[in-house]
Amino acid sequence: MDLLLASNNKKKAAELQRVLDRAGISGVNILLLSDVDPYDEPVEDGRTFEDNAFIKARAGMKATGLPTLADDSGLAVDELAGMPGVLSARWSGGHGDDEANNDLLLGQMAHVPDERRGCAFVSVCALVLPSGEEHIARGEWRGMLLRERRGEGGFGYDPLFLPDDAEGRSSAELSPEEKDARSHRGKALAQLVPVISQFA
Amino acid sequence: MDLLLASNNKKKAAELQRVLDRAGISGVNILLLSDVDPYDEPVEDGRTFEDNAFIKARAGMKATGLPTLADDSGLAVDELAGMPGVLSARWSGGHGDDEANNDLLLGQMAHVPDERRGCAFVSVCALVLPSGEEHIARGEWRGMLLRERRGEGGFGYDPLFLPDDAEGRSSAELSPEEKDARSHRGKALAQLVPVISQFA
Repeated sequence: MDLLLASNNKKKAAELQRVLDRAGISGVNILLLSDVDPYDEPVEDGRTFEDNAFIKARAGMKATGLPTLADDSGLAVDELAGMPGVLSARWSGGHGDDEANNDLLLGQMAHVPDERRGCAFVSVCALVLPSGEEHIARGEWRGMLLRERRGEGGFGYDPLFLPDDAEGRSSAELSPEEKDARSHRGKALAQLVPVISQFA
Repeated sequence: MDLLLASNNKKKAAELQRVLDRAGISGVNILLLSDVDPYDEPVEDGRTFEDNAFIKARAGMKATGLPTLADDSGLAVDELAGMPGVLSARWSGGHGDDEANNDLLLGQMAHVPDERRGCAFVSVCALVLPSGEEHIARGEWRGMLLRERRGEGGFGYDPLFLPDDAEGRSSAELSPEEKDARSHRGKALAQLVPVISQFA
């Protein structure tokens, strides 16, 4: 059956597909926003990842009548009291400029010694069903912030993130499968697999 | 007697002088860093205002043998979990670029509604005496973050700060005397007046 992923990010759709494949769930047809009739997308002005994930999932289900999954995620830096957090994608002021966001974060953290560069990628996934049933799951991936970019894969802050569990490689140096097995979003999505399997 | 203010900011020296004048304390000769033999200024890499104020005050007293006062201050925005905080002066990556810092903060907060724009200016003043005696005082000034600059006075984030107690004027629209009577630094300095009066 159809499942709307309230996003335009094809990498997130591919990640969800891999998670479902590994769980042996077939028959889920993942649609992105570009695959459904356009609707007014809500302002993501929540203060938490949870707020934003529900804002997006509820709006998608309401507009399309489809089960809708939405992810809100970001990088929480200890030294910055958990920021950029929900502002990760627009940390430098505009929206979605990965290079500017990475440059800014490197500058803000330039003086901070290694032992205080801890951070975590956080993903919160909300799933809203046509029945009104709602589910939410949170995944975290701990690591530290590098001092320069490393690796060509991934997106967002991946080149600056050195996971605790990746043998010294940045998250931009992991294969998609290696990243799924460790990542914040992989962990959050995995928690929703049992729900998705019930209606798939 | 001489008192070193571990800063190069003449506006801070003038503010301290006004506080002492109002308290009726004469005979304190405020020196700035430019008035004493140069010494290696320490890296301000503390995680808190308190840490940084002590780093600066201890270094100044050690290098000069003079009673040394140091202030560390910044803007703590509720929506940003208290940041820019200790990074206020270098929020945009470099150091001391008020225009870039203000622009960045406006961009990061552009989507945030009025009822979630609360913030506070915070000042922590440390005073270290040649005897080794140490004092510290904290002052806060609550208000909200404006959506555009207002006023020509002050420095730093003053044009964006609408104090709760200034009848609708920004902190860049207050006279120095009006600002002293309300400000975070005025409140912190006032707490140290009794100590200063003992050795003045």
